[in-house]
Amino acid sequence: MPYTCGVLGASGYTGAELLRLLHGHPEFEVAVVTADSNAGAAVADLYPSLAAAYPGLTYAAVDPADPAAAVAGLDVVFCALPHGESQKLVPALLGRVGRIVDLGADFRLPAEVYADWYGEPHSAPDLLGRFGFGMVELFRDVLTPTANVAAAGCYPTASSLALAPVVAGGLVEPTGIVVNAVSGISGAGRKLAAANLYAEREQNVTAYGLLTHRHTGEIEFALGHVAGSPVQVLFTPHLVPMTRGILATATARAAAPGLTTAGLLDAYRAFYADEPFVVVTDEPPQTKATLGANVAQVTVRADPRTGQVVALGAIDNLVKGASGQAIQAANRVLGLPEVTGLPTIGVMP
Amino acid sequence: MPYTCGVLGASGYTGAELLRLLHGHPEFEVAVVTADSNAGAAVADLYPSLAAAYPGLTYAAVDPADPAAAVAGLDVVFCALPHGESQKLVPALLGRVGRIVDLGADFRLPAEVYADWYGEPHSAPDLLGRFGFGMVELFRDVLTPTANVAAAGCYPTASSLALAPVVAGGLVEPTGIVVNAVSGISGAGRKLAAANLYAEREQNVTAYGLLTHRHTGEIEFALGHVAGSPVQVLFTPHLVPMTRGILATATARAAAPGLTTAGLLDAYRAFYADEPFVVVTDEPPQTKATLGANVAQVTVRADPRTGQVVALGAIDNLVKGASGQAIQAANRVLGLPEVTGLPTIGVMP
Amino acid sequence: MPYTCGVLGASGYTGAELLRLLHGHPEFEVAVVTADSNAGAAVADLYPSLAAAYPGLTYAAVDPADPAAAVAGLDVVFCALPHGESQKLVPALLGRVGRIVDLGADFRLPAEVYADWYGEPHSAPDLLGRFGFGMVELFRDVLTPTANVAAAGCYPTASSLALAPVVAGGLVEPTGIVVNAVSGISGAGRKLAAANLYAEREQNVTAYGLLTHRHTGEIEFALGHVAGSPVQVLFTPHLVPMTRGILATATARAAAPGLTTAGLLDAYRAFYADEPFVVVTDEPPQTKATLGANVAQVTVRADPRTGQVVALGAIDNLVKGASGQAIQAANRVLGLPEVTGLPTIGVMP
Amino acid sequence: MPYTCGVLGASGYTGAELLRLLHGHPEFEVAVVTADSNAGAAVADLYPSLAAAYPGLTYAAVDPADPAAAVAGLDVVFCALPHGESQKLVPALLGRVGRIVDLGADFRLPAEVYADWYGEPHSAPDLLGRFGFGMVELFRDVLTPTANVAAAGCYPTASSLALAPVVAGGLVEPTGIVVNAVSGISGAGRKLAAANLYAEREQNVTAYGLLTHRHTGEIEFALGHVAGSPVQVLFTPHLVPMTRGILATATARAAAPGLTTAGLLDAYRAFYADEPFVVVTDEPPQTKATLGANVAQVTVRADPRTGQVVALGAIDNLVKGASGQAIQAANRVLGLPEVTGLPTIGVMP
Repeated sequence: MPYTCGVLGASGYTGAELLRLLHGHPEFEVAVVTADSNAGAAVADLYPSLAAAYPGLTYAAVDPADPAAAVAGLDVVFCALPHGESQKLVPALLGRVGRIVDLGADFRLPAEVYADWYGEPHSAPDLLGRFGFGMVELFRDVLTPTANVAAAGCYPTASSLALAPVVAGGLVEPTGIVVNAVSGISGAGRKLAAANLYAEREQNVTAYGLLTHRHTGEIEFALGHVAGSPVQVLFTPHLVPMTRGILATATARAAAPGLTTAGLLDAYRAFYADEPFVVVTDEPPQTKATLGANVAQVTVRADPRTGQVVALGAIDNLVKGASGQAIQAANRVLGLPEVTGLPTIGVMP
Repeated sequence: MPYTCGVLGASGYTGAELLRLLHGHPEFEVAVVTADSNAGAAVADLYPSLAAAYPGLTYAAVDPADPAAAVAGLDVVFCALPHGESQKLVPALLGRVGRIVDLGADFRLPAEVYADWYGEPHSAPDLLGRFGFGMVELFRDVLTPTANVAAAGCYPTASSLALAPVVAGGLVEPTGIVVNAVSGISGAGRKLAAANLYAEREQNVTAYGLLTHRHTGEIEFALGHVAGSPVQVLFTPHLVPMTRGILATATARAAAPGLTTAGLLDAYRAFYADEPFVVVTDEPPQTKATLGANVAQVTVRADPRTGQVVALGAIDNLVKGASGQAIQAANRVLGLPEVTGLPTIGVMP
Repeated sequence: MPYTCGVLGASGYTGAELLRLLHGHPEFEVAVVTADSNAGAAVADLYPSLAAAYPGLTYAAVDPADPAAAVAGLDVVFCALPHGESQKLVPALLGRVGRIVDLGADFRLPAEVYADWYGEPHSAPDLLGRFGFGMVELFRDVLTPTANVAAAGCYPTASSLALAPVVAGGLVEPTGIVVNAVSGISGAGRKLAAANLYAEREQNVTAYGLLTHRHTGEIEFALGHVAGSPVQVLFTPHLVPMTRGILATATARAAAPGLTTAGLLDAYRAFYADEPFVVVTDEPPQTKATLGANVAQVTVRADPRTGQVVALGAIDNLVKGASGQAIQAANRVLGLPEVTGLPTIGVMP
Repeated sequence: MPYTCGVLGASGYTGAELLRLLHGHPEFEVAVVTADSNAGAAVADLYPSLAAAYPGLTYAAVDPADPAAAVAGLDVVFCALPHGESQKLVPALLGRVGRIVDLGADFRLPAEVYADWYGEPHSAPDLLGRFGFGMVELFRDVLTPTANVAAAGCYPTASSLALAPVVAGGLVEPTGIVVNAVSGISGAGRKLAAANLYAEREQNVTAYGLLTHRHTGEIEFALGHVAGSPVQVLFTPHLVPMTRGILATATARAAAPGLTTAGLLDAYRAFYADEPFVVVTDEPPQTKATLGANVAQVTVRADPRTGQVVALGAIDNLVKGASGQAIQAANRVLGLPEVTGLPTIGVMP
């Protein structure tokens, strides 16, 4: 019998993507979806892509007095809420639902790191231990059978999977790492802002969040976990004219001379040998190869001329960078095969 | 035990899309893929999107002396070949493979209609009767348990599904029908032509094939089948800056006064009530709602002011307009549930 | 000495495009730009494209008590305001500025046609006679040296220039005309709506305003002026994933048999022989050929098989469909050479 | 009386862009355009954008026995040829034309640097001294009244203008500099390759030329000129789904602690105070702000946390990165005001 699921905040892009993926998952069954301003609307009206699969589903309202009531008793609750909302909600959810899978940033970081990058103290620090960081390949140890899931962010996933093998092996210096990443616009969500309009983003590339993007802390956290010691990263995100996809291009100083591209590629293949969702490529990865799929593609180069290593990682920010990864982690903590219900082929062309 | 499958011409876009969809189909197993100039290449090199799912698959060469040999003995052979190639190949395939599913135009039309629109006589007219026109919703009668499949073209699918209910009901005049359709660039295939370059197509819309596009004959054939008598269509296709998707906008003169939009929408809902792959929408359909899915979305309007009916249909040209529809028809003739293995949710946003 | 200019509503897309074009116009000098919610902001902050050319320009506020005060005394005032605003403002402007060039719909149509399509009576019908319809090629007669300008809309421009030669010559029936047009998203302005977000419009085509788009009345008005008698049009607009550009594809029944494509192309070349901004092409026009330029490209076909004529017209909706055309008409009524300051080369690729 | 001009290789994208810009230049008059495989074709057939401005112009053939003959006697000859062609042609051109402006890489670099990055010796090293490196802002000293011009490449222009103020001031270390840049697809020219097809590039980002892109040498050359001593750069270019535009994001280690963003922005404003084509922005520059304009927009940040400086530069690769810059340099060596005929406003939105 499938697990009954709820999706809180299902009218946003990651919520809609959860609905797409959950429909193809043989062990999950969507029972309730909620939305705030869209409560009462038909899912198919907001996302006509879901019309054939969910013809009658509507967004349920959430009772402000008892926000957990809408999903109480369900086996798995996915939270696809704006930043900060999960912190408020999780205390009421724990004990009333089987498992929580949070797609926001609220339960990813240690309290002090959270405070540094989010500019405010965490409101439920005592509950952080109830969550495992949901980037399965690098955090299987904390995704235990009783853990809830704090699914990792999109940029951290692409960046960390690209760099993990050299960081884990101590092959690069832990400081001076530079990550430049480009993202499709869906990363900004369905937010009504002039900067997200088609006419403003088409034929347009720009950097944003210079020096201060919050995912910096998360990349450093993930890579620090892999390295076993602190890692420092300068992270610069960019918007490019596409809807989905992240490509992270990372450079790091080789810890010692003698690295070769062939040797590094071998190391990457070994590191990811048993991972169904990571492909190590000879050629530079293309974001489109991952579109719609729960896959990361990575490659690496050693540059003796400058003494640097270049590592690249491509994902679909809404799948491996959000909803797909959340389901992968949910599979893990529920004891299902990790690959259950997750597409591995990109929609290309 | 799954049916063993071969894909001839698997290095083109419809071939690659077949591989994507067949991987998710529980009753089909890809045994052989062939390619002409790409023989010997790894599938994952041409389509890195397929790397995770088909890590070791390579394109087999075809022996010019015995082109059927590569797939002899297989249960189902999909032909995703350039126009005219199937005619040459099918005589050799019949009897040596279980079932043929042709994605080209070679076996769709009666011989004389074919000659009219393709400017040359059909080379195997005696074999046309072995194929059923693969637009399942409108041609179930000819998709019998022993038929091979000539999967319908992309524009004809969008146009015919949009117009079928009013044409079948005699609600519009059979002449004076105007179909304007826009298509994503993937419809042109992976052809190296200046007109298909990114820099030439981006921010660019143009019509093409004015008055003479070959799909005109196929639209008239499909609608004529539905009407039971000849239908005449003026068809104008356009290229728009997207990769996938067709929207057909059709206008036809009402056969009698009194039509209403509400009445027509009811008629459409009744006509498609049992169809899992056709969604009748109140709002104008969006191509993106169908991206990656084997779904057509249609709507209709009656305009008392001008005495016209407007019907619209949206599909993904590579799925419901090609590879998905081919599999749907294969399901049908093989006696599998039509919906087996076919996605119904578009990748949106 | 150049004419001093003001632009009311200069923070929208047509306002910004006016600033781009006026900067290259040797006879106009921008003195004042206003904006409502953006008053006080630097023009370069909203449109960094204007930073080099207008480094210090800021949007002036408009005094609600005397909205004309901001531009009083200027030679030419361009109104790039939301629908309905010009009607309120023009009474106060007349007499206090030299010439008004309105880019909105308020002064384009006869009062009764306006009421039909805009669903409310015109508030200043007595002033309609002070404006000439600003589609210069077809309305030079009303763009007199004392006229103010009601610059024509984007769809009507593409559609009317495409059809004018056959309509003027009586070569097609005045009813049963079907215009399907596609537009870039900038036609919707800088409006914050989910439907205008990048992620919703990319890879997406949809029709909108079915049967009721207000430009229908304007197309019928312009073609009726050309024909000298009423013309009826069924108009269906579509959004396609590009920022600028309109392609109108029109079909009309030939009034008599015997029309040929060659003959029609000759007629088009003759009709537009002296027009610097209309190019008659043999091949189907491409919107990108007009990007950034005040040019319309048109072609035509006769289809003996269906007895229809197909006419196509491509423009940049923000230039020939709005700001460029407004300047062209201003040139005309001010007695300047029509071509002054207007680019004729599209940004291609 | 205007200078008579020829454009060799005018059927490529930089050639077409030269024609667009030269048409708006009051001191240049296009007399001859040549093309190889397109000889005899009408310019308007290849670029319908040029139809209104150059209605009768056709591509002249080049006589292989005397390739200079086609342009002999002209005042200025622009070479927009494939890599390596200028080296062969320039010996024959010198003395027979007034001035050469080469848009290729052939005369940009010292012979030994050229050999390093292009993998072959330069065939006319003795003529390198006749050319000045055409990035005017940083190389006015070598763009003397008798110099020919080797217009700088697109990536080097964006990268060098972004970094020049900190490099010139010795504010950053000369090694360990990392430049990640993204480019529109037009940078690849009109080359028929699968990788340049619309369907392959849309919704797709990928890096290419890892470690070995030839523009690396040119960036190091330009920054070394500015610094007065060698500079080492690790350069990673990327393709993003747009036609025009380059954004270079550069990181470099601060040479000493204490740098502030405010201080660096002041330094940038001072450095570029008299430059009409460089805009220093507070916000991260957007490529679209430069589309169609001969403008670079740059900004800078100091990051005390990591001890790094981030510098960003945006241009239109076909204008400031190629044809516009070539004209700017030609203006310079001919003694015309540098701004003559060059647009400074981007086509936005």
